[in-house]
Order: sequence, then C-alpha cells, then structure tokens
Amino acid sequence: MNGWTGTDGGVCAPRGFLAAAAAMGIKNPAVKRVDCALICSDRPAAVAGVFTTNRVKAAPVLWDQGVCVHGTARAIFANSGNANACTGERGIADARETAARVAARLDTPVTEVLVASTGVIGVPLPMERILAGVDACAAALSGFGSSEAARAIMTTDTVPKEMAIERTFPEGTARIGAIAKGAGMIAPNMATMLCFITTDADVSPRLLRDMLGRVVNRSFNCICVDNDMSTNDTVLVLANGASGVIIREGTENARIFEEGLEYLCVQMAQALVRDGEGATRFVTIEVTGAADDRCAWTAAQSVARSMLCKTAFYGGDPNWGRIACAVGYSGVIFEPDRLCVRIGDVTVMAEGLPTDYREADAAAAMKEREIHIGISLGDGPGRAVCWTSDLSTEYVRINADYRT
Amino acid sequence: MNGWTGTDGGVCAPRGFLAAAAAMGIKNPAVKRVDCALICSDRPAAVAGVFTTNRVKAAPVLWDQGVCVHGTARAIFANSGNANACTGERGIADARETAARVAARLDTPVTEVLVASTGVIGVPLPMERILAGVDACAAALSGFGSSEAARAIMTTDTVPKEMAIERTFPEGTARIGAIAKGAGMIAPNMATMLCFITTDADVSPRLLRDMLGRVVNRSFNCICVDNDMSTNDTVLVLANGASGVIIREGTENARIFEEGLEYLCVQMAQALVRDGEGATRFVTIEVTGAADDRCAWTAAQSVARSMLCKTAFYGGDPNWGRIACAVGYSGVIFEPDRLCVRIGDVTVMAEGLPTDYREADAAAAMKEREIHIGISLGDGPGRAVCWTSDLSTEYVRINADYRT
Repeated sequence: MNGWTGTDGGVCAPRGFLAAAAAMGIKNPAVKRVDCALICSDRPAAVAGVFTTNRVKAAPVLWDQGVCVHGTARAIFANSGNANACTGERGIADARETAARVAARLDTPVTEVLVASTGVIGVPLPMERILAGVDACAAALSGFGSSEAARAIMTTDTVPKEMAIERTFPEGTARIGAIAKGAGMIAPNMATMLCFITTDADVSPRLLRDMLGRVVNRSFNCICVDNDMSTNDTVLVLANGASGVIIREGTENARIFEEGLEYLCVQMAQALVRDGEGATRFVTIEVTGAADDRCAWTAAQSVARSMLCKTAFYGGDPNWGRIACAVGYSGVIFEPDRLCVRIGDVTVMAEGLPTDYREADAAAAMKEREIHIGISLGDGPGRAVCWTSDLSTEYVRINADYRT
Repeated sequence: MNGWTGTDGGVCAPRGFLAAAAAMGIKNPAVKRVDCALICSDRPAAVAGVFTTNRVKAAPVLWDQGVCVHGTARAIFANSGNANACTGERGIADARETAARVAARLDTPVTEVLVASTGVIGVPLPMERILAGVDACAAALSGFGSSEAARAIMTTDTVPKEMAIERTFPEGTARIGAIAKGAGMIAPNMATMLCFITTDADVSPRLLRDMLGRVVNRSFNCICVDNDMSTNDTVLVLANGASGVIIREGTENARIFEEGLEYLCVQMAQALVRDGEGATRFVTIEVTGAADDRCAWTAAQSVARSMLCKTAFYGGDPNWGRIACAVGYSGVIFEPDRLCVRIGDVTVMAEGLPTDYREADAAAAMKEREIHIGISLGDGPGRAVCWTSDLSTEYVRINADYRT
C-alpha cells in the first residue's frame, strides 16, 4: 500500500469536500428513503470521468462528458430511483436544469456541476422533487454527509460502499475518498455502476484523466457481475488541491498517488462484486503466462463471464473442464497442451491434462466463500486478475421478478 | 419451403444410409442406456464438417477435421457419456482406434470414418466398451435405426431431435435427414452440440463445404442457450448421391438444395433451443435496419446472450430497457434516437423513446411460450434473426448440481 492507510469520512475525508443526502421519493413519492446526494468542493477542482461505452447513453452521462472536457468542476448531484435514460431531448434538458439548480445554490457556473442518475429508465425525471432534492441537499451539506450520500445512491445494493485513505507526503497529508453503488444492472432500473471519488491532492485535469483511465482498467474493468453494461455507468474523480500536496506527471508523488487511487478503486470494485445480486461467493480469476497482459485479461474475463463457470462456482463444483473450455473460446491464442488450472492450492489440470488431484481437495477449495482460480497459459509474461461472483438461483429470482 | 416436404426416417430417409445404436454403459457400466450410434452409407459419400472454434478441441474433432480435408467418408460413429476431450495423445490414439474398428467392420478405409463424442471430459474413453459398441452397432445397422441413434447421442436433452425432408427434382427425389443433440454445454460433460446430416443428393465435397458453411451461419450460429462453446461442437454432412439428383454449383438445383439444407438446419437449431436446459420460453430476436447483416446478427446475439434479457424473458417481464441496453453495448454503431423495440405486436420503444403502449399488452406478449422481439436500428438494410431461451432458476440448478 506504499504508505497509504485507511481513514474515516468517505468522500468528505479529503479537505474541502462536503456532502449531504435527502429523501425525496424520486421513484415513488410514497416511499421516502434517501435518494438524492450532493458532493461539493469548497473550491474549483480538476475533474476526470470514465463513462459507459454503451451506444445508448443516459442524459446525465452526456452532460458529464461535456463537463469533463471543460476539466474543472465543483459538485456532483446524484439521484437513485430514476436513470434519466431513454428520455430524449427532455432528459438532456432535465439534466441541465438539475445542474443549473445546483450551480445556483452553490454560486458556481453550471458547467462545473456534474449529475448522475440510476434507476428506472424511460421515465422522465420528476423535476419538482429533483429540484427540491437539490435544495434540501445544499442546505444540509456537511463534513459528515458521506455515509448518507453512499446510502442515497443504492438501488439493489444491500450495503453502502464508502472508503477513504490517506498518506503523508513531504508537503503534507493527502486523502482520497470514494462512494460507489452497483450490484448488477437491473432494468428497468439498470442499476448501474456509479463511483464518485474525491481527493485533496493537487492534480491537473489531464494527469487526473490519464491516471483514472489506467486505474479503471485495473479495477472496475476487471469485475463482472452479470456482463451487462448499463446506460449510466460513471466513475468521476474531483481533485481540489486543498491538501497542498502537488502531484505532477512523472514524479515519485505521481507514482504513489496513482497506487493509492488504484488501491481505492480495486477495493470499491471488489465491494461491488461481493454485493453482486444473489452472489454467494467471491471469485478471483488470475491468468498468467499469456502473450501479454491484454490477452491475460481477455482469458480471465471469459471465465469470469461464463454462465457455466459461474453456476459451478455457485454449486461449489470443482469443474475445471468448464474453466479450460471458457479459456479455449476466449479468442486468446495458446497451446492447449500447456494449459494449467489451479483451484485454490489444488492443481487440477497441468500441461493440458487432468492431474491425479484428490477430488475432495478440489471440492473443498471450491466450497470456500472466496475462491481463487489460477490459470497458466504457458505462452508468455502476460498476467491479469479479474473478480467475479457466482450465478445463483437468487440472481435469476431477483432479475426475473424485478418489475412484477 | 420451395417444394421440400417432411418425411420419415431421419438420417436413414436418404437412400443408401443405415443406422444403429447400442447401450454400452460408456459413462457408467452399471447404467445401460443407448450411448453408441453408427450412421453409414453403402457407398463413399462427399463429406463436409463445421467444428468448434474453441482452442481446446476434443480428439474426435481433430480426427474429423482430417477426414473432412480428405473429402470422402462412409460412416460416423458417435458416443455419449465421454467427450474424449483434454485426453492428450491418448485421446487421439483412441479416436483413431475407434475409427479403425468401424473401418474394419464396414470394410472401408480408416480415413473415411468420422467419430464424435460428448460427455465427461478429462477421462480416457473406455475403449473396451467403445469397441464393443462399434461391433454391436455394425451388426445392427438398418434403415430404421435413426431414432435410436438420435437417442444414443442425448445427454441432458429431454427429447431426441430427428428430422427428414424430401423434394422431387427433374432427375428424381432427393432427401436430407438429420439427428442432433445439445441442450446447453454441461461440464464436466460439456454436453456439446452435435448434428449429423445425411443426403442422397450428389454434391461435390467442395460445394457441400461451401453450402454447409453458409447454412450453419444462418442456423446453428444464430442460436444461444448459455453462450458457452464446447470443445466438441460438430456438424457433419454426408452426401452419397444415391438419389441420382445432381447438385452442381450455380444451378437452380443448388439453390433449391441449399434452401432445403438451411430449412433442416434451422429446424434442428430451433429444436436445440426449445430443449435448452431449464428453458421455459422460446424467444426469436429479429433485428432490422442495421448497416449490414453482420451488424444485425451482432446486435441480435447481444440480446440473445444477455443474462438480464434472458431472466426478463423467464419472468415474463416486458423489460424493453434491458433490450435497448444490450443492443447499445453490442458494439454495433447506430443512432440511439432511431432505435425501435417491439415485443410481439406491441411497439414499446420508437425513435429512442418509450411509446404510450399499455403495460398489460406488453406483459401479455412477454408471457407467451414463444416470444418475438423486433428491434429496428434505423440505419440500413441489414437484418438477422437469432433464437434464444430464457434463463431460469432451473438452469442454474441443473448446472450447479451437475456433478454433485
């Protein structure tokens, strides 16, 4: 962890950040659970974002992409209960109007306000309640608002996801905090993966963007719950420089900061998998010996996404044949007679053939709550790690019955 | 159907083909269900095959690819209960020895014998029982053996798949017959998709190969049960010319024959989906308005493979948001504000926005045993149809508990 340690406060741990939440009945006026959240910095912050690559992008994603080009932001307003997706021109106008209300309340340019939504799609935002939510949040901003904000963005999540870390640099102590949600993409809610990160380090928008891109590839892009990519997936990071710790490209500080950012994102990504819909096990897929890291990632993802592997994980069945098979159809080139597969500490396949492992040992490794699958392709130095959940009857039940 | 009509006899409907099956206890000597099948032609036949593209290929697939290069074959021997996959050099030797025994019994070159296996992987074939199975089948060959052969290749299939069609040409009547199996890829059995096709038309190996490639792309490559591609997937066609109907490239006969072959393969492919593991609904995904047919196929497959769409089909939930979303992340380029989605006759999304459809109508369409999803991208003339099953709790149960 290179000197980074955990701390309290979530997105409010970094200096100069406040947060709040409010219960506005966004999905259903009769049900008042916290469903609006506001995070803001007391000064302009560098901003970077990574968004869904889905062709069908929700209005807030389109809005935020514009803000991120601009490079500076002050606030993020988010709601659950309505995704503002497939809402056409009206959706864009609603996103802009929401941002404008936040801007007015915080006395900041509208182009420095980010918005995010998760929930039902194809239904216009209930703007009266959304705008009242902005007002309520703006009035309640505090340094203790992170946990409620984390709770406000939950949909089918069973636990809020919040975390912060800090580290002392020669110039002072810098902090990075985050809240996230996402437990599978549930339509019409398409529950979406959202992660909001704050830091009081001083980072340029350009360096922040480069770092976030790399870090997301090694964290959120390595997880898999149900393979569906939502219209609303968003990772945002705000860096307001309040700590006085300056992060410049190519320096030791930059290397250390990026490690901290990666650690935080990996922890949040893993938390999403652990809270995956219906998940009963947490599975790490580690691929080594690929031609390069990209090939390793592709092979690992193929296993992580395989319905047959995921049902075997659920059943606690050490079914290495499904694993070998999923690697085989991943599109990655390798020699089958060099393939090795390990379940926990038990090597079940070596040089393309089953070993004389004891079935009871493999079964025991597969029945753990946390399963480690090691796959070696024997082809090169490439390696990658992905994290996935199992596929349970409960997952099917959650998603088959969601609207009915 | 262009003159083709159904007929009896399966793979024995075409003149000159015989079949048989035997119960050898391949998986478990104590359980005697039919598990060996032999199909043979009384004269050399042109042969073409399409095989799994999985890097991990079972021994019989590697053997058959060699036979297909040769272009002529006389017989197919198949067993269920053991896949002869991940069995290394020994697996190849066993496949060759099986073919050699068939060749000896039928007095034909070993290079004209195809073999196919489906079942447990990583376990060597029980060669004593396999060779006895060859002998038993060879002794029992008859013109009425197709149904038993269809039954012998079943694994988790609940019904045998068998079909034949015929059509009168100026030179006489030609027939095409088929048997198939495959209900999801179940490991360690990796149950595999197998389809064996016979015809008494006179077709050159080259033309047969070209036709089969096109036809498989429009039939077996348009279905989806659980996205996993087995180590053993095989489609074989034998054309022995016994009808005297000559099919030459570029002729009207060739066009008619290919239509018949496609019809048969589409029927067999659909039968596999209908018998998919845990399937309760049969879903047709039709994409139109794509830039080209390939893009349409890609978009349709994305919906057909989506776990969220498949659980919605199971739940009978008219969840068009999941459909729009799966099209969105398919990688196909289109304008979201032209996207239209239809469930049965109910247009639920038009020009990228939800219509004012009645929820009850959409729900009724989604609760049918056969569901039709129409998707229009508004981008060009490309179109494709895919067929998929729903994802049920029963699917998870079947695959989580398979070995335990």
